[in-house]
Amino acid sequence: MRHMKRIPFDEIWQELTRVLLAVGFEESRAKRCAHIFTENTCDGVASHGLNRFPAFVTDVKTGLVKTRVEPELVNSFGALEQWDGKRGAGLLNAEKAMKRAIELSRGHGIGCVGLRNTNHWMRAGTYGLLAAEAGCIGICWTNTIALMPPWGSAERKIGNNPMSVCIPRAEGPALLDMAMSQFSMGKLEVFRRRGEELPFAGGYDENGALTTNPNAILKSGRALPIGYWKGSGLALVLDLMASFIAAGDSTQEISQREKETGVSQVFMAIDIVSQMGTANVEEKVNAIIHDFLDASALEGSPKVHYPGQGMLASRRENLEKGILVDLQLWQMIQQM
Amino acid sequence: MRHMKRIPFDEIWQELTRVLLAVGFEESRAKRCAHIFTENTCDGVASHGLNRFPAFVTDVKTGLVKTRVEPELVNSFGALEQWDGKRGAGLLNAEKAMKRAIELSRGHGIGCVGLRNTNHWMRAGTYGLLAAEAGCIGICWTNTIALMPPWGSAERKIGNNPMSVCIPRAEGPALLDMAMSQFSMGKLEVFRRRGEELPFAGGYDENGALTTNPNAILKSGRALPIGYWKGSGLALVLDLMASFIAAGDSTQEISQREKETGVSQVFMAIDIVSQMGTANVEEKVNAIIHDFLDASALEGSPKVHYPGQGMLASRRENLEKGILVDLQLWQMIQQM
Repeated sequence: MRHMKRIPFDEIWQELTRVLLAVGFEESRAKRCAHIFTENTCDGVASHGLNRFPAFVTDVKTGLVKTRVEPELVNSFGALEQWDGKRGAGLLNAEKAMKRAIELSRGHGIGCVGLRNTNHWMRAGTYGLLAAEAGCIGICWTNTIALMPPWGSAERKIGNNPMSVCIPRAEGPALLDMAMSQFSMGKLEVFRRRGEELPFAGGYDENGALTTNPNAILKSGRALPIGYWKGSGLALVLDLMASFIAAGDSTQEISQREKETGVSQVFMAIDIVSQMGTANVEEKVNAIIHDFLDASALEGSPKVHYPGQGMLASRRENLEKGILVDLQLWQMIQQM
Repeated sequence: MRHMKRIPFDEIWQELTRVLLAVGFEESRAKRCAHIFTENTCDGVASHGLNRFPAFVTDVKTGLVKTRVEPELVNSFGALEQWDGKRGAGLLNAEKAMKRAIELSRGHGIGCVGLRNTNHWMRAGTYGLLAAEAGCIGICWTNTIALMPPWGSAERKIGNNPMSVCIPRAEGPALLDMAMSQFSMGKLEVFRRRGEELPFAGGYDENGALTTNPNAILKSGRALPIGYWKGSGLALVLDLMASFIAAGDSTQEISQREKETGVSQVFMAIDIVSQMGTANVEEKVNAIIHDFLDASALEGSPKVHYPGQGMLASRRENLEKGILVDLQLWQMIQQM
């Protein structure tokens, strides 16, 4: 059992900023990067927040993630732009790219930015949320190194290519944030550590049988795509699209490297609030979400919730009481 | 066992055109509509081709699908347009909308058309393919009446919202065409008729247990979303986006009607061939697809195939030998 402690948002933010300044980020960039890591944990996604911070710092120290580069516009075709991330911090590159997609949507109704040669963006939802806060529908996805076999094979060839879709709403946006594998590597690790079985089959064991045993899946390397053949196909087309729209590297090319770097990403923003007005958007989104929430829960199950609802609850609680942090991890960060 | 017969493409096309002329379509529209139905069967998707033709004709006769209307541009925001389908033939409206998205992509890099107040488009892939034939990435999806319960409920609230993504390739495009349910209603019917179990759980029985029995799922009405909670969330955000981008009706609103009509759809085209050149696109798409196909097959399994590969094989065979058609269905159409 790990010891947890509640720490105020600003205290975590300051501490992470201190570490990032020490490894070479200039002040405004250190602050932004630290803010995204803190926010991810605050929103209940510690797996892409504080938990991943030490590995990020290591990647900066080894030069995999460059601190002193800015993304650069490479090609422009009206509402569509291609940017080069120059192997900088994935979080800052992605933030910049979604901001640019939002700007493009102001003039064109829709904006689309392909970003190549970038690094892990941590949480997909961060950038979807950014669009929703600006009154836009946000859609974004990334490719990754090969993490899953295509349907019908045991050989890893496709990424889990996380995607986020976010729809603005005053009471709390609808935020889908999902990878194309049924369970992320992080989730499998969590179940293994707790000695628990998965609630549903999450992959294959070494004999090729579907299993709920996280250890067997981590051993075989055969995570299951969502919907079997459907998620396998979806992961492939997300990679194809990212590679083309960003004119960047594909999962196959990225997987030749020792560590994942130089990934390709897509950011789309559709400016619905400017087009329809805030009141109309609110009325429509509330009607749909309230109807969804009206679905009666199964016996013994919790109430139905929409994607993003849990995130919002975590954020409120953590902002009020302090963010729940693994004490050992926190002490480790303090000593960095 | 049903009797099948091979009939040349043009013979089917002419026969369907004759029927559509008789129910009130003018010639060029009857021909286009009949062509899409024929092509869907030719491509191996009879469930959204000839099999569905009699029901389509009934919908025309009852006035659910209007023959003498043209979709109309309602709003324009640069690269984004909203069209009203006026409850016309879903196939013709969708074709027009994707063609318009392609035109918009020529000037803006990306084009996006929201289409409201339209009818069933039959096969999602038809419109993705249209974009790919024009050298664009095509993305499109539709909402539907409520067909599935959200995750954690037994009450139908969400559509299965089929989506298509198509990437151009000389040798044959990558074409993803999938609904958000693990098995379509049509597939469940096919398995039931054959008295076969599904290869994987496709929904819940009336006691709330996951089952591979198609009959039990059709009885309970509880089809399973792909990836459990993930497909449930994905279906919701596809409906939200379609409703906003088209400024049209949501699944909730459509489900109030006696029969599905007045659906909302989204069409996106990204003009990659103009931007990168045909040779560059070909080289990149082939590298990714060949790597995917290189994945060694599981023992006793067929070779790995990419989405769209089976469609292409069906098309080639049917064009060469004649399209394989259910004889009883064919005789029924001939008597219409």
